[in-house]
Amino acid sequence: MKKIVNDVNNVEEEMIQGLVKSAPKKLRKLDYGTIVVRADKKEGKVALVSGGGSGHEPAHAGYVGTGMLDCAVAGTVFTSPTPDQVLEGIKAVATDKGVLCVVKNYTGDVMNFEMAIEMAADEDIKADYVVVNDDVAVRDSLYTTGRRGVAGTIFVHKIAGAKAEQGAELPEVKAVAEKVIANVRSMGMAIEPCTVPAAGKPGFELADDEMEIGIGIHGEPGTHREKLRPANEIAKMLVDQILADLDYKGHEVVVLINGMGGTPLMELYIVNNFVQDYLKEQGIAVYDTMVGNYMTSIEMAGFSITLLRLDDELKGLYDEPADTLAWKK
Amino acid sequence: MKKIVNDVNNVEEEMIQGLVKSAPKKLRKLDYGTIVVRADKKEGKVALVSGGGSGHEPAHAGYVGTGMLDCAVAGTVFTSPTPDQVLEGIKAVATDKGVLCVVKNYTGDVMNFEMAIEMAADEDIKADYVVVNDDVAVRDSLYTTGRRGVAGTIFVHKIAGAKAEQGAELPEVKAVAEKVIANVRSMGMAIEPCTVPAAGKPGFELADDEMEIGIGIHGEPGTHREKLRPANEIAKMLVDQILADLDYKGHEVVVLINGMGGTPLMELYIVNNFVQDYLKEQGIAVYDTMVGNYMTSIEMAGFSITLLRLDDELKGLYDEPADTLAWKK
Repeated sequence: MKKIVNDVNNVEEEMIQGLVKSAPKKLRKLDYGTIVVRADKKEGKVALVSGGGSGHEPAHAGYVGTGMLDCAVAGTVFTSPTPDQVLEGIKAVATDKGVLCVVKNYTGDVMNFEMAIEMAADEDIKADYVVVNDDVAVRDSLYTTGRRGVAGTIFVHKIAGAKAEQGAELPEVKAVAEKVIANVRSMGMAIEPCTVPAAGKPGFELADDEMEIGIGIHGEPGTHREKLRPANEIAKMLVDQILADLDYKGHEVVVLINGMGGTPLMELYIVNNFVQDYLKEQGIAVYDTMVGNYMTSIEMAGFSITLLRLDDELKGLYDEPADTLAWKK
Repeated sequence: MKKIVNDVNNVEEEMIQGLVKSAPKKLRKLDYGTIVVRADKKEGKVALVSGGGSGHEPAHAGYVGTGMLDCAVAGTVFTSPTPDQVLEGIKAVATDKGVLCVVKNYTGDVMNFEMAIEMAADEDIKADYVVVNDDVAVRDSLYTTGRRGVAGTIFVHKIAGAKAEQGAELPEVKAVAEKVIANVRSMGMAIEPCTVPAAGKPGFELADDEMEIGIGIHGEPGTHREKLRPANEIAKMLVDQILADLDYKGHEVVVLINGMGGTPLMELYIVNNFVQDYLKEQGIAVYDTMVGNYMTSIEMAGFSITLLRLDDELKGLYDEPADTLAWKK
């Protein structure tokens, strides 16, 4: 394992400290655990809390700020934060309007966020949650019952974040978050694995000419392995599976070409070049496009494609300002 | 070589097309070569042109837009654009106020930009240039006489870009660009090499426990190789060499922790965690911090540190708005 780290058992703490120190006027780390909140708590709005295992940077702390999250709770690498940690995050940002948690669909995450919300209720904090399950690759995988939550999660942060910032009530913020979830689909692939620092060796192995299609953001297995093919063929395979799952025809979409952490922008733009032309052929109009590292798997090499289907409400909220480390608008 | 590409001899064209298609309302690609300009030419200001070999994405096309560049000219991977290409870029954006080219200090780049500026003069276009040489690692290296131009270049784009946007004259824009160059220093390192697609094999090799200190952004040799050490020790080595070169004491600085393309954000934030504390110990106040992939070497794993020394003029221009793919303010 070759990594630029100090102590493999302390990467989460040092990383979150380093992240907060990059924007000390905007972000604050709680003393309890690797939990990031806005430097100035915003009252009078539903507080948005997300989180999950570390290793997906900039998710989720990179999305804390005006127009998006109020709090991100990070577990150790690829491991859900504990209920206690989530509770601390909820308590730090809760307002009279309540708290909405945005949870990616992994068994541990869902269980721990549910427990934290129950514990918050005992302290008279009104909290609810939504579960993101945008990955069309597999059902009932290694860590999940049902579909996995992957890069589409950032659109829930963005759009529910905008709704909350407008002063909407908890059921309204939850409803629009669920609308995003109903309209977003993703699928990914990888050509190189990643290594959890404390584990010291890659989570899986691929032959020199092999790729994994449908891979999860923890390197968990996808639909199949095959020989590496040209970028356009790979991108077509992913887009086709997304389009087979949801009817995007005649709708405007936001396209996210997401790098898994170790993929150069060169490759992501080559993929985007194909995807834009291909969607046009399919009669799908692109409203906006994002290309870069938004939901990663440490240094995994690969990418995912996410398509968000828009209506006027989602488009309006998507266009609202956001000021976070990883997404400024 | 494992890459997500279609044709190794056409990566530059497909990449630039894919980049422009990610923001078609803001960017346009010239028919002639891999040259990116703002979709709407802005008159009444000095036009800022930069460029260099491809492989450093998001540099330089990712910095085209309001408040930064008017044009980015991309050569093939790690190869200067030709004088003809640079001339086409200059002609596409030139205004009555003239053109300033921002050139990284590599022999080929300087020669080709100089030739293009002479050719532009023959067509009655007033053009001038500055040469960025922020890398404190080595002098007179593989491709350079004098110091190399690396990640500090983006501060020249930002600050000279802001000055140009304000309607300043060519000598004023050039003067502030040179002021940035006089006040910015960088140094980098790598733990894994990158592969030029058309070459098909890594540009250098490192043992499993080895790193290269002072590496250039084309993987060219640095000051020395040694065994991999903890992140904090590596960061201290780079910062110390930067501080030995320019007196930052008592000044405010902008810190850039730049990923080389394949480095996960986790590691960059761990580096930042040390650098922020260390600068404070040295009596150097941090005005702003940027952490991410800003000047890369395809998928090389490693990072560089850049420190920009501010005065009131530079700070004011640094704070001006920018709207580009890679830098929004």
